[in-house]
Amino acid sequence: MLNAGEGMMDLIVYLAGEVHSDWRDQIIAGVEDAGLPVEFLAPVTDHPASDNVGVSILGAEDRDFWKDHKGARINAIRTRAAIERSDVVVVKFGEKYRQWNAAFDAGYAAALGKQLIVVHPPELTHALKEVDGAAQAVAETPEQVVRILAYVTV
Amino acid sequence: MLNAGEGMMDLIVYLAGEVHSDWRDQIIAGVEDAGLPVEFLAPVTDHPASDNVGVSILGAEDRDFWKDHKGARINAIRTRAAIERSDVVVVKFGEKYRQWNAAFDAGYAAALGKQLIVVHPPELTHALKEVDGAAQAVAETPEQVVRILAYVTV
Amino acid sequence: MLNAGEGMMDLIVYLAGEVHSDWRDQIIAGVEDAGLPVEFLAPVTDHPASDNVGVSILGAEDRDFWKDHKGARINAIRTRAAIERSDVVVVKFGEKYRQWNAAFDAGYAAALGKQLIVVHPPELTHALKEVDGAAQAVAETPEQVVRILAYVTV
Amino acid sequence: MLNAGEGMMDLIVYLAGEVHSDWRDQIIAGVEDAGLPVEFLAPVTDHPASDNVGVSILGAEDRDFWKDHKGARINAIRTRAAIERSDVVVVKFGEKYRQWNAAFDAGYAAALGKQLIVVHPPELTHALKEVDGAAQAVAETPEQVVRILAYVTV
Amino acid sequence: MLNAGEGMMDLIVYLAGEVHSDWRDQIIAGVEDAGLPVEFLAPVTDHPASDNVGVSILGAEDRDFWKDHKGARINAIRTRAAIERSDVVVVKFGEKYRQWNAAFDAGYAAALGKQLIVVHPPELTHALKEVDGAAQAVAETPEQVVRILAYVTV
Amino acid sequence: MLNAGEGMMDLIVYLAGEVHSDWRDQIIAGVEDAGLPVEFLAPVTDHPASDNVGVSILGAEDRDFWKDHKGARINAIRTRAAIERSDVVVVKFGEKYRQWNAAFDAGYAAALGKQLIVVHPPELTHALKEVDGAAQAVAETPEQVVRILAYVTV
Amino acid sequence: MLNAGEGMMDLIVYLAGEVHSDWRDQIIAGVEDAGLPVEFLAPVTDHPASDNVGVSILGAEDRDFWKDHKGARINAIRTRAAIERSDVVVVKFGEKYRQWNAAFDAGYAAALGKQLIVVHPPELTHALKEVDGAAQAVAETPEQVVRILAYVTV
Amino acid sequence: MLNAGEGMMDLIVYLAGEVHSDWRDQIIAGVEDAGLPVEFLAPVTDHPASDNVGVSILGAEDRDFWKDHKGARINAIRTRAAIERSDVVVVKFGEKYRQWNAAFDAGYAAALGKQLIVVHPPELTHALKEVDGAAQAVAETPEQVVRILAYVTV
Repeated sequence: MLNAGEGMMDLIVYLAGEVHSDWRDQIIAGVEDAGLPVEFLAPVTDHPASDNVGVSILGAEDRDFWKDHKGARINAIRTRAAIERSDVVVVKFGEKYRQWNAAFDAGYAAALGKQLIVVHPPELTHALKEVDGAAQAVAETPEQVVRILAYVTV
Repeated sequence: MLNAGEGMMDLIVYLAGEVHSDWRDQIIAGVEDAGLPVEFLAPVTDHPASDNVGVSILGAEDRDFWKDHKGARINAIRTRAAIERSDVVVVKFGEKYRQWNAAFDAGYAAALGKQLIVVHPPELTHALKEVDGAAQAVAETPEQVVRILAYVTV
Repeated sequence: MLNAGEGMMDLIVYLAGEVHSDWRDQIIAGVEDAGLPVEFLAPVTDHPASDNVGVSILGAEDRDFWKDHKGARINAIRTRAAIERSDVVVVKFGEKYRQWNAAFDAGYAAALGKQLIVVHPPELTHALKEVDGAAQAVAETPEQVVRILAYVTV
Repeated sequence: MLNAGEGMMDLIVYLAGEVHSDWRDQIIAGVEDAGLPVEFLAPVTDHPASDNVGVSILGAEDRDFWKDHKGARINAIRTRAAIERSDVVVVKFGEKYRQWNAAFDAGYAAALGKQLIVVHPPELTHALKEVDGAAQAVAETPEQVVRILAYVTV
Repeated sequence: MLNAGEGMMDLIVYLAGEVHSDWRDQIIAGVEDAGLPVEFLAPVTDHPASDNVGVSILGAEDRDFWKDHKGARINAIRTRAAIERSDVVVVKFGEKYRQWNAAFDAGYAAALGKQLIVVHPPELTHALKEVDGAAQAVAETPEQVVRILAYVTV
Repeated sequence: MLNAGEGMMDLIVYLAGEVHSDWRDQIIAGVEDAGLPVEFLAPVTDHPASDNVGVSILGAEDRDFWKDHKGARINAIRTRAAIERSDVVVVKFGEKYRQWNAAFDAGYAAALGKQLIVVHPPELTHALKEVDGAAQAVAETPEQVVRILAYVTV
Repeated sequence: MLNAGEGMMDLIVYLAGEVHSDWRDQIIAGVEDAGLPVEFLAPVTDHPASDNVGVSILGAEDRDFWKDHKGARINAIRTRAAIERSDVVVVKFGEKYRQWNAAFDAGYAAALGKQLIVVHPPELTHALKEVDGAAQAVAETPEQVVRILAYVTV
Repeated sequence: MLNAGEGMMDLIVYLAGEVHSDWRDQIIAGVEDAGLPVEFLAPVTDHPASDNVGVSILGAEDRDFWKDHKGARINAIRTRAAIERSDVVVVKFGEKYRQWNAAFDAGYAAALGKQLIVVHPPELTHALKEVDGAAQAVAETPEQVVRILAYVTV
């Protein structure tokens, strides 16, 4: 219960997209340090496991298309269930990868009425303008995301 | 569980709108005194923090429009997540401010099928008739809101 | 968690409609005796309080229409929040009252995709055929409702 | 297209409930006389056909319960499709019949966010207070409904 | 059908809010001059009729609250049906009136996922920041709205 | 809370369809052995009880059609409430039975946006192609389902 | 417009499932003979085309699983768009085929709140009890479906 | 109406994403040549107009971020209204651009339950696996899309 003079609001936050850098850890650590009432959800971030999960569990494929397809659909079980359950979806983009899955997740979240926070370096502004346009906040660093989460929960 | 002869029903109540008077504290204190099973949610009520949050976290702006825009969109992360989660939305209007955000929240809540309680002095009846028309109850004082919450939860 | 060989499923059940007999107590007592994982919700069942709540909290009215209107809309805060949260809605009809509110609640629940159980004596079959037609089960006694709840939860 | 200075808005209106009096004809005639852009939908209003449709098409039943059940469910095909497609649902209640189906349709329509107009004599105010409380307008005569439809479409 | 090289897209646009100036006529005239495939919807803009409609059709009231209430709820029949049917909702704010109904309609439209265009003079930026934050475009003049509609339909 | 370096995600999983073999026990046992954060829901799997529940609680029927009808509708109370609450629906098909109810549940779950896992022997591929086409994963054994659940939750 | 004394209601009806017999033609011919205001939608009923469409358009596959998968997913484009647009879904089952796709479509339609009419010989009653339990009408012949459509549209 | 032996089904198809090549014209021309009952919707495809629309209509900005933001949000008015109205969304990806907006639209469409067709060269399979996994069909050429549309509409 929110007591008089006390305004904590818990949130469920999904950390979508890029699995190659430690941006999730930075956000989670920052939130833990601040003691914020945030529960995090995330995709499977073990990249080789994620790429091979389809054939590893459901059997080998000759064509890469079906190998990828089987894996992507299994990964979507977790991704979609997590987005549905979240209040806020944070999506991180970087220079290095195409990250169409991150943009897909952002669109999926926006259509469900989730609050979107996008994180990317300023050089990507023009390329990401449609995604940014759907976001409640466009940050450049994980640290800014922590500050936003602190502000909206405390 | 509702036992025979016992009818407590917990509710989640969002206290929308005006951040300049202590009406939220009055409702929360009344509910606490009565021991009602009500969980409250509210926007950030620290007014200067709320006005500056956008530029304070995401960087300065030359134009007031964008300063306000960045702040308003961050505040909406909390507001919308809170309205979505609520059973009841209480919206308080006063003579002093335009409070278009309070009316916006009322419309947002009504479209989601939330139960709306509006609080305002009788002088505002004509100006607020469309908002009142969407409400389940139109009260004049926080104390009446407490009595309504007591009635519908006990 | 459902263990192998164990199939308990908890349910939230709203007991709609008639407030003049003790049918709710019978169902609740039966469910408690059987130890079923059912949480009950119900409208305010104190009839005079329910009729007077509008004017009692929000001020007297000269016309009965507005007295009833103010009361009915406050009662709907609890009723609607409860139906939205339920898995199953049980609606009891009897010979004695018109109970249009019970039929209204049944329609409201059906449109939201809730599972409907209707309870009434066989004499009312023709008059209630449209409501029965929307129900998953049509019982004649509270004891049958308890048995249905036992069956679907155990 | 709405031209400057011209404000016609077409509406789809479902006329729910009582099939024993000519109230639908009165509303339809009034709307036609006024040339309003209203399309009406209605249940099957041939009462004996409506009562017998289940057994007449799908085969006889020994028990009245199933005769009624089969008929009611076929009638619901039209009723539900019509309510889904409507902007406004008008529900008429009279002294003579229990009309639980009318109240059920009102609840169904309310849960779908349809605009509800209820018509009944003033003597029924207390018994219908919950249905009235969900309505945008409570009229006493078909002629008032025509005037409301004229006002909101012209 | 969209032919190769031809990109017209029809839209339904609701013009919400202020009924005291001719801003609707300016937008409609501009759209007609440009021959755009836009269908407009609007509330009843005859102000005295709108204020009196409740008591005029459904009978006099002693208290102003109920006079306003009956009128506001009848007006909402048209307003809500129109917003539900629209692709885009344009809301105009001015200095002169409180226009809580305009802000309510904006919130209602936003929650339904409608595209929002807000029109107001720059002096109102701070007071309208939450409404602007939910809008796809914030214009200062009806002429800018016409240009936006031309751009998104041609 | 998801800690840095820890990725557990709890899921609610409904085990639909076939009640004649022990496939549910195999999945549940596998999940328990692995200590996965999965809560299972299932239909009533006592086959004779399930077939007779309608007449056993609500009274005998002369015609098998109504005996089956009453039972099926009571069983649907649990089935539908369980599917609505689930993140993932697992549906198992075998050679021996027609299992139209399993395919019905799969369609119901797909329309609600639930994640679908189908289990069947390879011989049924052609007959089940439309159901498989809606699934996130098509497994041949309960053990593969356990591995998928382990992957998407750990 | 529904004139006084005239009650035609148009419907969109999807004819799901079995593509091996001429039941669709019988229903369509009956409806045309009766001049009913029914628009029919159906899946692609050219069976070999339907089975091969995936590989025929998108390229050959070595494994039957992917051949079926690609075809089934293309067929679902039409099936799902058609079910979404329908008021009523008719599903026909026969002795000869497993028709899991028909049962899947029935479940999909039921979850979307579509009105369901099931057609099957009486021998299948027990096996289809869950599907029948979700239907507004259970017919044995296409001719009965025509009579139901005549009743609900005239 | 679908006549016996005739199976045309009209569709609304949104052509999302890449505006730098003539793939839309190829699909539209192919559909016109085949006389298919397909209505196309598309974003504004005049690239410079699309980039400048925000500042061109709503006033200049010093920072590129806000120039892009204002333009992207105006473009979204058309994009979102079009996706909402479509049955099928076709999304084309190429090697040359990042096209995060195309992936965003694909996610948005998927969350709304639209049928997704993705077009891309085989080299992009791994990068697009999550988007492909949500699609009903993955084509390599516009001509294949025409063939799919011919198949599902004729």
